[in-house]
Amino acid sequence: MSLFTRKRSESVASLGETALITDIRRWLGSAAPESPHGMGDDCAQLPISFEQQLITVDPVVYGRHFDDEIAPRHVGAKLLKRNLSDIAAMGGQPTAAVIALTLDPLTKLAWLEAFYRGLAACARKYQVKIVGGDIAQAHNHFSASLTLLGRAITKRVLTRQGARIGDSLYVTGRLGGSLNSGHHYRFKPRLDEGAWLAQQHEVLAMMDLSDGLGKDLRSITPDDARAQLDQNALPLNKGCDVRAALSDGEDYELLFAVSGRTKHETFLSKWRQQFPRVTLSRIGELVSAHEVKDSSLNLECYFGYEHLR
Amino acid sequence: MSLFTRKRSESVASLGETALITDIRRWLGSAAPESPHGMGDDCAQLPISFEQQLITVDPVVYGRHFDDEIAPRHVGAKLLKRNLSDIAAMGGQPTAAVIALTLDPLTKLAWLEAFYRGLAACARKYQVKIVGGDIAQAHNHFSASLTLLGRAITKRVLTRQGARIGDSLYVTGRLGGSLNSGHHYRFKPRLDEGAWLAQQHEVLAMMDLSDGLGKDLRSITPDDARAQLDQNALPLNKGCDVRAALSDGEDYELLFAVSGRTKHETFLSKWRQQFPRVTLSRIGELVSAHEVKDSSLNLECYFGYEHLR
Repeated sequence: MSLFTRKRSESVASLGETALITDIRRWLGSAAPESPHGMGDDCAQLPISFEQQLITVDPVVYGRHFDDEIAPRHVGAKLLKRNLSDIAAMGGQPTAAVIALTLDPLTKLAWLEAFYRGLAACARKYQVKIVGGDIAQAHNHFSASLTLLGRAITKRVLTRQGARIGDSLYVTGRLGGSLNSGHHYRFKPRLDEGAWLAQQHEVLAMMDLSDGLGKDLRSITPDDARAQLDQNALPLNKGCDVRAALSDGEDYELLFAVSGRTKHETFLSKWRQQFPRVTLSRIGELVSAHEVKDSSLNLECYFGYEHLR
Repeated sequence: MSLFTRKRSESVASLGETALITDIRRWLGSAAPESPHGMGDDCAQLPISFEQQLITVDPVVYGRHFDDEIAPRHVGAKLLKRNLSDIAAMGGQPTAAVIALTLDPLTKLAWLEAFYRGLAACARKYQVKIVGGDIAQAHNHFSASLTLLGRAITKRVLTRQGARIGDSLYVTGRLGGSLNSGHHYRFKPRLDEGAWLAQQHEVLAMMDLSDGLGKDLRSITPDDARAQLDQNALPLNKGCDVRAALSDGEDYELLFAVSGRTKHETFLSKWRQQFPRVTLSRIGELVSAHEVKDSSLNLECYFGYEHLR
């Protein structure tokens, strides 16, 4: 479905803001609690939480994260799932979200309804409450930014810091080709896997893969270390080569470091008991700079997705 | 300063995302805490809070909320202050924020630096920590959405609900002409006033004025009541008439309802002790529908700012 229309009668401009907000609340249904814990006031009030809280923000922008080929219900779900993947990467559980919409008044009303219904279905599935939002006008543009709150369900929150020389590097699932395969909107955020990994003491650092392993690996690699990857161990999606796995981005898989003292077979067997259907690959290890083997992948040749270039 | 440039060397594209994020953290300075309580990971971790939390989101969009005439440092401050005004309206205290930026790669780097430095100065002034963000690309567009968290510092959080027939209606400050006077970015969010009002038991409902009194009043008026305004009591800004006060919007003043049992003189004297320099006006009262006097303002003639029309 195309996002914009030339017919005012089919567009959000035919409603105006006040009526549109009423419709949005209807489309969101049970995903949107009543005021004061939801929309309808200057702020939403959040239930008191006695756990460590997490916060993240990610948008979907027309022409960047989706186009007219992607069904609007998938776009709505993708907006939430991009953020869920960030919560998963810290081992957290999502709780509440707010959405800032910036759109052209000629945005098609039917498109927006499907977008919100897709978002709501996804929010119900992952028990996220949509508690607030804002709508602003722009010309020939559609973007939606979602801020997601979560809570840490383990005492320890896994971050990108904490990996050391000697650690093994692991990724969940398979990599590459996300844009062509539709994985970039069909993916399932690794919330269960992230929460379980945060409870395993041998897991020392974790992040989600959004810009491509080649770029993202740098964030988890300590300054004094190098990531030495085993090219043959990379879990490639069908039709993908190593370059695709390292550079395509939008994999939304988990990358994590496991203590070098842990045997691969032991860890893999624990994993398989928990997640028998999810591929887990030991893709390499962290070594000191002078230890890098000539035969290993030179990661400096793979940049991943660099925005604004 | 103009927002966009034709010279790539002057634009954010000359840096790319990774270097830009490094610069943004430098521009934000002490307003941006280190990871894990700030930028640099998949999520930011928030300090555990044992108080009721508040959340709100508001953007600034180029061409809607600002143009090339407004200095970028004022745009950055406005982005935060719009949200601070929402926290003020619930009697809360702001704590932490995340920002989603959507911009054209030809956005001028000097403009963006001034924007972030203005935002940071404002964040330091109001003790808000900028804990995370996202940058996405769009064509011929600049918008920034800020999600602000706050905490309730009183046991009671004031909402738009709670006003009753017989209550008096009050506004802080003066109304109208915000766009021409520059008040729309120069205003001071009423945080102290909001926090104090939330502690006064006779104050029953509160909100901030963003779309104009004529429209916003409807949100605080119960279904069975009508707002009967005294035209002569409206606090007009210089050069403004009643229509401007009701319809211009972006006043960012507080509108609240005080129990009809409270004498105006008593309340005004309490107020003046606290806020001797801030004008307070009793602009009318809530009456039942059949009580409306013919001489009172017919609010149905004043619409305030309706977005997306």
